[in-house]
Amino acid sequence: MPVLLDIARAPTLEALLSAAKTQGMDWRISAVPDAGPLKIQGVGTLSSAGGQEISFLANPRYQSQLGATKAAAVIVSPDVAQALESGEQGRPPFALVVCKHPYLLYARVAQWFDAARRPALPGGTHPSAVVAADAVIEEGARIGPLCVVESGARIGRGAVLGPGCVIGVGSSVGPDSLLHAHVTLYEGVKVGARAILHSGVVLGADGFGFAPDPSLGQGAWGKIPQLGGVAIGDDVEIGANTTIDRGALEDTFVADGVKLDNQIMVGHNCRIGAHTAMAACVGVAGSTTIGERCTIGGAAMLSGHLTLGDDVHISGGTAVTSNILKPGRYTGVFPYAEHGEWQRNAAVIQQLAQLRRRVRSLEKE
Amino acid sequence: MPVLLDIARAPTLEALLSAAKTQGMDWRISAVPDAGPLKIQGVGTLSSAGGQEISFLANPRYQSQLGATKAAAVIVSPDVAQALESGEQGRPPFALVVCKHPYLLYARVAQWFDAARRPALPGGTHPSAVVAADAVIEEGARIGPLCVVESGARIGRGAVLGPGCVIGVGSSVGPDSLLHAHVTLYEGVKVGARAILHSGVVLGADGFGFAPDPSLGQGAWGKIPQLGGVAIGDDVEIGANTTIDRGALEDTFVADGVKLDNQIMVGHNCRIGAHTAMAACVGVAGSTTIGERCTIGGAAMLSGHLTLGDDVHISGGTAVTSNILKPGRYTGVFPYAEHGEWQRNAAVIQQLAQLRRRVRSLEKE
Amino acid sequence: MPVLLDIARAPTLEALLSAAKTQGMDWRISAVPDAGPLKIQGVGTLSSAGGQEISFLANPRYQSQLGATKAAAVIVSPDVAQALESGEQGRPPFALVVCKHPYLLYARVAQWFDAARRPALPGGTHPSAVVAADAVIEEGARIGPLCVVESGARIGRGAVLGPGCVIGVGSSVGPDSLLHAHVTLYEGVKVGARAILHSGVVLGADGFGFAPDPSLGQGAWGKIPQLGGVAIGDDVEIGANTTIDRGALEDTFVADGVKLDNQIMVGHNCRIGAHTAMAACVGVAGSTTIGERCTIGGAAMLSGHLTLGDDVHISGGTAVTSNILKPGRYTGVFPYAEHGEWQRNAAVIQQLAQLRRRVRSLEKE
Repeated sequence: MPVLLDIARAPTLEALLSAAKTQGMDWRISAVPDAGPLKIQGVGTLSSAGGQEISFLANPRYQSQLGATKAAAVIVSPDVAQALESGEQGRPPFALVVCKHPYLLYARVAQWFDAARRPALPGGTHPSAVVAADAVIEEGARIGPLCVVESGARIGRGAVLGPGCVIGVGSSVGPDSLLHAHVTLYEGVKVGARAILHSGVVLGADGFGFAPDPSLGQGAWGKIPQLGGVAIGDDVEIGANTTIDRGALEDTFVADGVKLDNQIMVGHNCRIGAHTAMAACVGVAGSTTIGERCTIGGAAMLSGHLTLGDDVHISGGTAVTSNILKPGRYTGVFPYAEHGEWQRNAAVIQQLAQLRRRVRSLEKE
Repeated sequence: MPVLLDIARAPTLEALLSAAKTQGMDWRISAVPDAGPLKIQGVGTLSSAGGQEISFLANPRYQSQLGATKAAAVIVSPDVAQALESGEQGRPPFALVVCKHPYLLYARVAQWFDAARRPALPGGTHPSAVVAADAVIEEGARIGPLCVVESGARIGRGAVLGPGCVIGVGSSVGPDSLLHAHVTLYEGVKVGARAILHSGVVLGADGFGFAPDPSLGQGAWGKIPQLGGVAIGDDVEIGANTTIDRGALEDTFVADGVKLDNQIMVGHNCRIGAHTAMAACVGVAGSTTIGERCTIGGAAMLSGHLTLGDDVHISGGTAVTSNILKPGRYTGVFPYAEHGEWQRNAAVIQQLAQLRRRVRSLEKE
Repeated sequence: MPVLLDIARAPTLEALLSAAKTQGMDWRISAVPDAGPLKIQGVGTLSSAGGQEISFLANPRYQSQLGATKAAAVIVSPDVAQALESGEQGRPPFALVVCKHPYLLYARVAQWFDAARRPALPGGTHPSAVVAADAVIEEGARIGPLCVVESGARIGRGAVLGPGCVIGVGSSVGPDSLLHAHVTLYEGVKVGARAILHSGVVLGADGFGFAPDPSLGQGAWGKIPQLGGVAIGDDVEIGANTTIDRGALEDTFVADGVKLDNQIMVGHNCRIGAHTAMAACVGVAGSTTIGERCTIGGAAMLSGHLTLGDDVHISGGTAVTSNILKPGRYTGVFPYAEHGEWQRNAAVIQQLAQLRRRVRSLEKE
C-alpha cells in the first residue's frame, strides 16, 4: 500500500531510480531475484508493501520486519545490505537498493510517484471563478472553480488555485505554488514560489491590536488598524487551518523554506527565519522573532516580543516566556501521571516555596 | 427556551414520547395537572422552560430548581418522582415523565424536536454547484449551492452537502451523512454513513513529513509525499475547523462512533478506536494509535508514535509523552494560582533537583 | 512603512489631526521644521517611517530611536516634548505632535488612514451570490461574490460580506458589520452592529453534547441535539478560524465589545462579559461564564461549568480548573529550561508528595 500507478505505466526498478531526482546520492541495485526486471507500481512500508511495491528500511527498529516483507525491492543502508548479502539465510526474496541515505532516497522515489500519479492539468480559469478585470493570471496558472481573485492580484506562472480560494486585492501568489481548496489571502499578502498552502489557511487577517479607549465606555477597547501585510518566502509549506496575521505597520515575515504544520497561529509582526519548522497547534504571539533552522514542537506556545536565535529547538507543549539566544533544546512540560498520583504531587506544587523554607530551616538547625 | 414548533404542529406529551425513539427505556407519565392534554412545543432547562415546554432533571444539583420551574412537564428519575408524588407540598404544577435514565430520554425527545423542526428538503444538486461529469450523486443526496464535487467522487444516498463544500477526486461520503457549509475533503478520503462534519473541517491535507535534504541548502527540508488517504467509519461526528491529515503511505483511520469536538488536530497515520471521544483543541501527533472508548480532555496533546490502550481517559490540558496501556485516568496539569504565589512556587520548580539533594543530605546527617 | 496614500490625496499634518477622531484628547503641533506644511502619506514605526510618514513614541524603551528616525512627525507625550524642545541638541528634524495619550492618538490617526485608503464601495449583491428570495438585504449592504444567504436571513444596513460567506437560515448580521471572506454562520445566529468577523470564523456549529447510549452499542454515544443558537453583541471582533458553538438549549452569548483573537474555541452555553479580550488559541469549555473586562492570555484553557468574575486576568498557557471570583491575575505555567535541567527537575515532580513526607519526617526528628 499504496499502489499508485497501473501496471502499464509502472517503471522498472532501474528506470524508477533513474527517473527520480537522486542527485547527490549514490545508489546501486543488488540481489535482484531471478524473476527478471521488476515493475514498480507504488511505495509501501515493510509491513504493508505488496509484490509490486518498493519499500525502505531507515529506522533500525523495523529491521526485524525485513524477514516477512512482501515488497519487491527495499532501500537499505550499506550496512544492512552487507548483512543481507552475506547472511546465512541466503539471498533475500526482494531486490536491494543500497544507499547511504535510505530515507532521503525513499522521499525522492515517493516524490516521483506523487508527480506521476497526478495528471498534468492544463492552465486556465474555471468559468465559475470570479476574476477581477485587472488581476494578472500568468501563463500556465490554473484557477479552480468558484475562486475569487480580486483587483490587482497576480497569480504566477504554473501556480494552481484549488476550488474556492480567495485572493485579496493586490495580493500575489508566486510561480508553481499550489493552494489547495479554501485558502484565503487578504489584501496585500505576498506568497513566494513553490509554496504549498493547505485548505483553511488564512493569511493576512488583522493582528490583535487594541488600546483601552475610555471614550468608548468603561473598559472598552479601541482598534489599532493593522496596516502592514504578510510576506511569505519561497518553498514554504503551510498546513491546514493555520493563520498568519498581517502586521500592524510592517509585514509579518516568513522566510524561505519554512514548514508550518496545521492549526498554527502566527501573530502580527512576527519574523520566522529560513528553514524553521513548527509542528501542529503552535502559537506564536505578536512581534516575536524566530531564527533559522529552529524546530518548535507541537502545541508549544511562544509569548510575544521575544527573540529566539538560530538552531533553537523547543519541545512540544512548552511555554516559552523569555528570549532564547543559545542554540539547544528547551522543555517545560508537566509530567503526567495516574490521576491520584498527580493530585498528590500537584498539592505539593502549591506549597513549594513553603517546602523550600522548611528545608532551609532544617539546614540551619 | 427554545420553543421549536408552532402550536399547530406541537404534539401532546403522550404523542411526543410515543414518537421519540425511546426503545430500551421504560417511561410513564404521571401527575398530569387537571388542565388536560398538554401540547409540547419545545424543550428547555428547568430555569428557562416555559409553559409549553418539557424539561428534565438529570443532575441532583439542580433539584432545587424544580420548585420554581414553569415547564409543562419534567422528566425525572423514579426516586425524584416518588418524592414529588408523596410530597407534602401537594401535586406539582407540571406533569412528570418518570424514567430511569432522564438524560437519555431528554436526548431522545430533543432529537425528535430537532428532526421535526427541520423541513425535509428534497434531494438534488443546486444549479450553482460544480459537479464533475463522472462523479456519482446517489438517490436523495442533496448538493448545496456552490459546492464542488470532483472527478470520481461519490455522494451516498440521502447525504447532504451544505453550501460551499469541496469533495476531492475519488473521495466518498457515505449515506445519510451531513456535511455543513465549507467542509473540505481532499482526494482519496472516505467518510462512512451517518457522519456529521462541521464547517471548516479539513480531511486529507498532507501529513507533516519532511527529511533534511542538504541538496536543497543548509538546513533545508525535503518533502515526504503523503500518499495515503483518510478513512472515517460510520456514525462519526467531527467538530468545526478540526483537521485530520492523510497518511504517508497508509490511511489515517478513525473508527465507528468516534466523536471529535472543534479545532482538533489528528496527524498522519493515526488510528483512533471506536467510540473514543475528544474534547476541543486536542492535538494528536503523527502515527499515534488510540484505543476504543477513550476520552481525551480539551487541549490535551499526545506525542507521536504512541499507543494508548482501550478505556484510557486523559484529563484536559495534559501532555501525554509515553505509551499508556492500562485503563484509567491520567493527568498532568500545572495547578494555577494567584500570579505572585505562582511566581514563588515556579522559582522552586527550577531548583527541584537541588532541593531533593538538600533533603537527602539532611537525611544523612 | 507603510505609505498608504498617494501624495495627491495626502493631508497636511494639521488637516490629518483635524480629520482624525481625536475627541477627548488634547493635542498640539510643535517644532515644525522650516520646510513648511508637511504632507503625510502614512504611518510607521520610529525605525521604519520615511519622510512622508507620521510616527509615535508610546513606550519609553524606544526613546533612543528618536535620534535616528526619518519620520516627518512624531506623536510624543508632553514630557518627551519638553525634553526635546529644551534639549541641547537643538530643534529635532521632525514635527512634534504633543498629546498625553500618544498611543491612542496614533490609533486614531491610523484609523483615519485605514478608512481613507479603502475606496467606498457601493452596496449591492454580486451576481454570483446565492441569496434566498425571503432573505432581507438592507440598504447599503454589500454581498460579495459567491456568498450564500439562506432563507429568512437578514443583513443589516451597510454591512459587508466578503467573498464566500455563508449565512444560515434565519441568521442576522447587524448594521455596518464586516465579514471577511469565508465566514460561516449556521442557522439561528445573531451578530450585532459593527462586528468584524475574520476569515474562517464558524459561529453556531453544534456544541459537543453526547450521552452514553447502550442501545447503540457498548461504549457508544448518543447525540444531544443542540437546539440553542449564538448571540453576539455590538462592537465585537472575532479572529480568523475562531469557533463559537451554539447552545444546547439556550444561546451561547458574547456581550458587547468583546475582542477574540484567532483560533479560539468557545464551547456551547458559554457567556462572555462585555469588553473581555482573549488572545489566540484559548479554549473555553462548555457552560463557562466569564465576567466583564477580563483578559485571557494566549493558549489558556478554561474548564467547563466555571464562573470567572469581572476583571479577572489569566496568563497565557494557564489551565483554569475552578471558579475565580476575585479580580486579579492568575497563572499556572511550567517554567521551561534547557532540556537536561528540565529532565532533572521533572523527575522530582513525580515524587513531590514523597519529598514532602521526607521533610516532615526530618522535622519530627
